[in-house]
Amino acid sequence: MRQANRDEKLILVTNDDGYEAAGLWALVKVARKFGEVVVITPDGPRSAMSHAITMHHPLRIKECVNEEKISYYRTNGTPVDCVKLGQKVILRNRKIDLALSGINHGSNSSISLLYSGTMGAAIEASFENIPAIGFSLLDYSSDADFEASAIICEQIIEKVLQHPFPSHIALNVNIPKGKIKEIKGIKITRQTRGYWHEDLVEHFDSFGKPYYWLTGHLENMDTEKGGCEEALKDHYVSVQPVQHDLTAYQYMNDLKFLEK
Amino acid sequence: MRQANRDEKLILVTNDDGYEAAGLWALVKVARKFGEVVVITPDGPRSAMSHAITMHHPLRIKECVNEEKISYYRTNGTPVDCVKLGQKVILRNRKIDLALSGINHGSNSSISLLYSGTMGAAIEASFENIPAIGFSLLDYSSDADFEASAIICEQIIEKVLQHPFPSHIALNVNIPKGKIKEIKGIKITRQTRGYWHEDLVEHFDSFGKPYYWLTGHLENMDTEKGGCEEALKDHYVSVQPVQHDLTAYQYMNDLKFLEK
Repeated sequence: MRQANRDEKLILVTNDDGYEAAGLWALVKVARKFGEVVVITPDGPRSAMSHAITMHHPLRIKECVNEEKISYYRTNGTPVDCVKLGQKVILRNRKIDLALSGINHGSNSSISLLYSGTMGAAIEASFENIPAIGFSLLDYSSDADFEASAIICEQIIEKVLQHPFPSHIALNVNIPKGKIKEIKGIKITRQTRGYWHEDLVEHFDSFGKPYYWLTGHLENMDTEKGGCEEALKDHYVSVQPVQHDLTAYQYMNDLKFLEK
Repeated sequence: MRQANRDEKLILVTNDDGYEAAGLWALVKVARKFGEVVVITPDGPRSAMSHAITMHHPLRIKECVNEEKISYYRTNGTPVDCVKLGQKVILRNRKIDLALSGINHGSNSSISLLYSGTMGAAIEASFENIPAIGFSLLDYSSDADFEASAIICEQIIEKVLQHPFPSHIALNVNIPKGKIKEIKGIKITRQTRGYWHEDLVEHFDSFGKPYYWLTGHLENMDTEKGGCEEALKDHYVSVQPVQHDLTAYQYMNDLKFLEK
């Protein structure tokens, strides 16, 4: 970990693809331009872990150094566990100025936000009012090109640090695939209405027993403008403020029959 | 599985505590009063799995019969996987009239809603517009008394089936501990603002290496009336309509500086 100046920010970085993911280290390199960076990451892939935490086995932390001699911490937990362990065990409740998660290999737009471990971690940080950003690149491959994403991440972090950050909010940033010149700009979006339509295909193992892999496609049910899917399709970066009060206020009155 | 009449409802039941949990079978017994019940449950505890799905190993399904000769399906997946497998593999896209999750051993009020596997399953069902209810009893013990809860579940399911169900919504039902006569009624609530303050205690294994268990307490940050915590404290059942658009609409305009 490099030595920090007094006026530098303390930045926690995590992800859900684990310590081997190129997207993590692309984000770490950007983060290090802004202050002291503490990296805590799962010891393997934890995609689609959502807001899961570990309750049924103990959590471990291992201090490591990557190929480029950057120190980091590896855990057997989920992305949300990483944030909790980072805050409480590694940083011993030091004030974190910024929590970053990603860069995820793959989209976390529309309903994928709810399944996302990347965003689970960012949302967890927002609970304690840490400014938090989850970054995702629309490329699932392990050798995805993060060059344009790194530029976008730096631009967004720079601007975010210059402005007041909304209270208890995380930003869900999705970046289109492609070179930086192909990206048209940044749009503030709302969550596109949609759901994953599952095509659960049956396979058979060597013993003739069936097993199933989750696979499917996003059913876009949105008919209005301003959604994240639309911005991404138009080659814009989608930035979405995300909150965690799930109450469907508009239906509270309709359910009053249950009180009688 | 008992034979269903033509006008009976098709009801999917799952949980996050797994097939051995008393709360599951209490809910199954209630559900069977309303129609054909298909039970699919994790093969062990999956508490705090939130909206996680299984991506890194194949899913299996096993047909089983419990001690009371009730047929059910057991999987190695998460609660959300159970809903997907139930819909697509077991029920082959038959129209599900009601999805029930629980009865959870422990509260899913306030921010616990976001960590909850019980509610993850219910919310998943709501994506495809299946009326969905997650039930939780404020008692974490494995031998919790579900007598009062069963009565409450039956009352709520009966009323819900008699009214139009809001579109793409799940109900988060939390039931206070105690006898039925101690419960004062049902209140429609909003999610109490709060977060889990972690007390990550360091332990040491037989080899002197540290490990950590998550444990903590809910920090209630709410200062207004109408929250779920308040209703539960006053011995009311809390019923909360839950939606899945996480966009913080109130901050979209404040973030326009990022578009420039």
